Amino acid sequence: MTTLFKAPAKDKAALEEGAALSPRFDGSGLVTAVVADSHDNEILMLAHMNEEALRLTIETGIAHYWSRSRNSLWKKGETSGNLQMVDEIRFDCDQDAVLLKVRVGGADATCHTGRRSCFYRKVVTDGGQTRLEIDAEPRFDPTTVYTDH
Amino acid sequence: MTTLFKAPAKDKAALEEGAALSPRFDGSGLVTAVVADSHDNEILMLAHMNEEALRLTIETGIAHYWSRSRNSLWKKGETSGNLQMVDEIRFDCDQDAVLLKVRVGGADATCHTGRRSCFYRKVVTDGGQTRLEIDAEPRFDPTTVYTDH
Repeated sequence: MTTLFKAPAKDKAALEEGAALSPRFDGSGLVTAVVADSHDNEILMLAHMNEEALRLTIETGIAHYWSRSRNSLWKKGETSGNLQMVDEIRFDCDQDAVLLKVRVGGADATCHTGRRSCFYRKVVTDGGQTRLEIDAEPRFDPTTVYTDH
Repeated sequence: MTTLFKAPAKDKAALEEGAALSPRFDGSGLVTAVVADSHDNEILMLAHMNEEALRLTIETGIAHYWSRSRNSLWKKGETSGNLQMVDEIRFDCDQDAVLLKVRVGGADATCHTGRRSCFYRKVVTDGGQTRLEIDAEPRFDPTTVYTDH
């Protein structure tokens, strides 16, 4: 496997203002990825990338992640058809988080529950009680798509 | 300290489809927070919240986080004036990530480098070489704002 990335700069100014892509993978070898739709910036999901997932994403233009639950490389949408075509990749100031701007294929749904975004519930507070309220409908039926779940 | 939150549901359907706010704080007691501007969904930063930060954010409507580098509660913008007024709080399917939609006060800048967003660099690939390119200007001078840095 080729390595695209430099070791993280020890110098704060180089890390924050430099042109070197030197991701700060954590103790588990991961950076956090925020995924937003290119068209309207809707935030679709949060995931994690190891070095290989980041390299494959840059090289292929299709989003790859590291699944912490399955402990394996994860080409998002391989089962559901909701692949993510990457328009832009951005890094944050201290290079431990990456932002992907994507177009979503298939049913244009990212969440495994069938909804467009994983953030389909808002926090509502009434009379001191706090609860979650769903305000998005599924775009596909997960029971017919993920037959091995 | 009052506790607003229930223990995470063991049942997947309850966790994903239920109305109970039961954040899945990790081994360090944190959930990941994505912060976006209410007006245009621009992604401003990624941060972390412990139970107290989440409770204070819900109760006060001003974003609070847990600073992993300083190991302390962090009222974002207390030094710089760039406070985050929270319009909406959303949770993701498995309740280990929170999305805040905010309006930013002061210079309308979130990054400690003075820029609007922490994601001020995009990944550029030319002839097999990958680098970062800055495409946003500072909105304030951090050297005059953070005098203890």
